[in-house]
Amino acid sequence: MSEQLAIGVDVGGTKIAGGLVDEHGVIVKRLRVATPASDAAAIEAEIVRMVSELSEEQLPVGVAVPGFVNAAQSEVYFTPNVPWRNTPLREHFESALDRTVVVDNDANAAGWAEFRFGAGRGLTDVTTLTIGTGLGGAIIASGHLLRGGFGAAAELGHLRLVPDGLPCGCGQRGCLEQYGSGTSFMRLLNEIADIEPNGELAEVRTRDGGLTASNVEPLMFAEEPGVTRALEQLGRAIGQGCASLSAVLDPQRFIIGGGVSVAGESLLRWVRAGFDEHLPARGYHPEPSFAIAEMGNDAGIIGAADLARIG
Amino acid sequence: MSEQLAIGVDVGGTKIAGGLVDEHGVIVKRLRVATPASDAAAIEAEIVRMVSELSEEQLPVGVAVPGFVNAAQSEVYFTPNVPWRNTPLREHFESALDRTVVVDNDANAAGWAEFRFGAGRGLTDVTTLTIGTGLGGAIIASGHLLRGGFGAAAELGHLRLVPDGLPCGCGQRGCLEQYGSGTSFMRLLNEIADIEPNGELAEVRTRDGGLTASNVEPLMFAEEPGVTRALEQLGRAIGQGCASLSAVLDPQRFIIGGGVSVAGESLLRWVRAGFDEHLPARGYHPEPSFAIAEMGNDAGIIGAADLARIG
Repeated sequence: MSEQLAIGVDVGGTKIAGGLVDEHGVIVKRLRVATPASDAAAIEAEIVRMVSELSEEQLPVGVAVPGFVNAAQSEVYFTPNVPWRNTPLREHFESALDRTVVVDNDANAAGWAEFRFGAGRGLTDVTTLTIGTGLGGAIIASGHLLRGGFGAAAELGHLRLVPDGLPCGCGQRGCLEQYGSGTSFMRLLNEIADIEPNGELAEVRTRDGGLTASNVEPLMFAEEPGVTRALEQLGRAIGQGCASLSAVLDPQRFIIGGGVSVAGESLLRWVRAGFDEHLPARGYHPEPSFAIAEMGNDAGIIGAADLARIG
Repeated sequence: MSEQLAIGVDVGGTKIAGGLVDEHGVIVKRLRVATPASDAAAIEAEIVRMVSELSEEQLPVGVAVPGFVNAAQSEVYFTPNVPWRNTPLREHFESALDRTVVVDNDANAAGWAEFRFGAGRGLTDVTTLTIGTGLGGAIIASGHLLRGGFGAAAELGHLRLVPDGLPCGCGQRGCLEQYGSGTSFMRLLNEIADIEPNGELAEVRTRDGGLTASNVEPLMFAEEPGVTRALEQLGRAIGQGCASLSAVLDPQRFIIGGGVSVAGESLLRWVRAGFDEHLPARGYHPEPSFAIAEMGNDAGIIGAADLARIG
């Protein structure tokens, strides 16, 4: 059965995670190392070493990277956190490894994993929004990953939500990412702590010297009112973005993943509220469902491996 | 060679146009009748009669309708100007005609014609915006028409451009259609005539009792300053919409069609200007080109026939 195995590698700004993945999307062996900072050759050498250690067999290899990859899954145009720029990464890896390699965007890989094995399985058209530091996206249309003409599709964090809105790292203003990402969530929480200095959020912030995912999470599960307000604002922004995306893509389901998605229904109900209020031509065509992603942090590894397996 | 022929029918609010179309997208025979107002059975009978008159052979038939069609190309959810509501139109036609019939959205059919025979030929990923009374769209991704999970994708006129903006017929506010359609163009022209009562636009409006496509067109080709300003505002709005669409779909080319597209480069240069100013992550990935549609008013007929031919 080893021909059904594939290797997936998820390259992040701080770590490289790899796994040997079976045909059901189960990771049967995994490895993880810190990303050698700002040294492209060292990062590539680390990936080659990791792949070889995961298996000596000629298994297909998928590498998910945080940046723009061309539609042929071979060249990285640009990665903000890793110094790749117009780099023929597939060629580098194929010559070093003597195996078939595909390179893909990390959010595409994660969305593909959800479609194949997670919250999108059994469907044909799903759109995934991964709410991390930024807001990544993946579009599955008629069972295929929509990569776009140049490979840069599904940059859903850069749908414009607000004209002349908050500045975005992409050079524009008002991108969805500035209203619906993990970074925006932390900004909202800090704003609420500022205006409610006697609230629990302000108290925790003072106690710990700052708000973090780990000190906010208990408050979130306890439905602390300030956190709930931030989730409402975040969720409504995401839902408004989904309303525009629905007019364009008409998915059967939107899948919300990434760190903030641990909030589950506490986030999803506001996403739905924002969506319901802003969906064009509501009542004249079927509507998508909303679900929380199921594959967690392994989605990138599993999706990259599966994309390599299917070629 | 008659197995390469197909019949396309384009159903509009005021007329039904049909054609016998060859495999190169050339209409070899055409018919046209007024749409029997607000009577679904009469419209269907007219289409059946037209198809039979175009050819007695068992050729595939494609019917393009102005509304939401399901992803299986069989059922019309809703058409604003024709009284179809959850109507199994394919079944109606197939039983009346004893031929293979596909039903599709009219903007999808027009975009497909551009992709196959017009401004998008030779490409794999193109997005068409048809600037008519409203703003229709079609998305070709990897050589396939993107219909969405329920068939209602590519409603590009209902991408939200401005939060709490101008009210739209779809029930929402700020839709691109309210800033980038032929209707918006006429609104802009009238606004300019209002604030410049001594301008040529105001003069023509007074002379003819109103502004229309036919009395504006000569002014447009003469580059009358008021018309040019309206084209700038219209084009920039369309370009801003295309910037968001590019983040989602990353087409190789945007194709601008419909009535207003006769303006050609006088419109396109402002579309590009709006796009260039608003494209996220500009400079970090390849950019699409912009072109005017080439198939004119026949696009719906030709696209519907071709969609029927390819099944």
